[in-house]
Amino acid sequence: MTVQADTRLRRLPERGSQDFDLACSIIDEARICHVGFTLDEQPYVIPMALGRDGKNLLLHGSVVSRVMLNLTGGLPCCVTITHLDGLVLARSAFHSSMNYRSLMIFGSACEISDLEQKNRGLDILVEHLAPGRRVELRGSTRKELNATTLLSLPIEAFSIKSRSGPPSDAASDIDAAVWAGVVPFRLITDEALDAPDMTMNIPLPDYLRTL
Amino acid sequence: MTVQADTRLRRLPERGSQDFDLACSIIDEARICHVGFTLDEQPYVIPMALGRDGKNLLLHGSVVSRVMLNLTGGLPCCVTITHLDGLVLARSAFHSSMNYRSLMIFGSACEISDLEQKNRGLDILVEHLAPGRRVELRGSTRKELNATTLLSLPIEAFSIKSRSGPPSDAASDIDAAVWAGVVPFRLITDEALDAPDMTMNIPLPDYLRTL
Repeated sequence: MTVQADTRLRRLPERGSQDFDLACSIIDEARICHVGFTLDEQPYVIPMALGRDGKNLLLHGSVVSRVMLNLTGGLPCCVTITHLDGLVLARSAFHSSMNYRSLMIFGSACEISDLEQKNRGLDILVEHLAPGRRVELRGSTRKELNATTLLSLPIEAFSIKSRSGPPSDAASDIDAAVWAGVVPFRLITDEALDAPDMTMNIPLPDYLRTL
Repeated sequence: MTVQADTRLRRLPERGSQDFDLACSIIDEARICHVGFTLDEQPYVIPMALGRDGKNLLLHGSVVSRVMLNLTGGLPCCVTITHLDGLVLARSAFHSSMNYRSLMIFGSACEISDLEQKNRGLDILVEHLAPGRRVELRGSTRKELNATTLLSLPIEAFSIKSRSGPPSDAASDIDAAVWAGVVPFRLITDEALDAPDMTMNIPLPDYLRTL
């Protein structure tokens, strides 16, 4: 099934972009994406981990998951990644907004079944979440590889929407006696928690300290 | 169009829940949701602000936005909210995971067009993002109300999936000489940025300091 996503922005086109490098930066900074697809006329939106191999977005999951089975079959999907950068607090509710960077990728995913490519793709997914970790872990077993579906979605038909900067108030509101501005958001890591079943005294690796 | 979402969890049913209070807590803690719908067989997933009025999720947008026009028409949708709580770093790539709480709500939204109810709903949306702010702002004008579409989606057909706690490694991996555990994530607010067009010296309100 081939459908053509309409990626044109009708409203506020100044918030849109078709910049591939910007798309990559949005992906590379993300820990999760939201994958949308349709089954029997019902849309589903599922959070998933992600990675990027050059011009392709990588997704993975269990071979027996319904999502993976359907996406492997070439079902059209939309993968959206959103970074919430801040609350934009204007003097009116109407002009209040959010600062964000959002990427929508449209298309159909292909399965990567070649074992060598699959191993490489899964390594990319590990490194995406915790750069530096892959080399510390044992390799995946054949059984593990067979239990995992790896999907690749081309970063070709996509749409970026973003907003940044201070509120844009109506001129008639500027003198209102209310604070206006931006409250920025940031995702941070808290102190790491050792697994209770660690039998050795292994310190937290540096690559996780600087995550 | 009425479709029945299949909200059964096929895999890992221990990660699923149908708890309404838990659904509300996931909504109340969220700043954005991802709204999925289908147009001409192409799925779309759009990030949006949100609020909650009792047993209904509230969404809003411009009356001229394509998303709002379609959702107002009763298009089936799936609204997903995800909190990423941490990276779960097992001794193997295969058992590594994420801690998260995710809610999917299925249904069709209704438009709230009565002006009094609409005003109230939009107030809820402002208070959702910045509790304490609504009372500081002037009321919405008739023109602003007419330029905004407010939608209500019943929190009835929903599905919660979550994971928490330490990694679950294979017994054969427990003694591997690699750190294992959880790196928790937290969304924080950075120092607020005054709007450059503030003409008075207005301090940051307390309700934003404690956001």
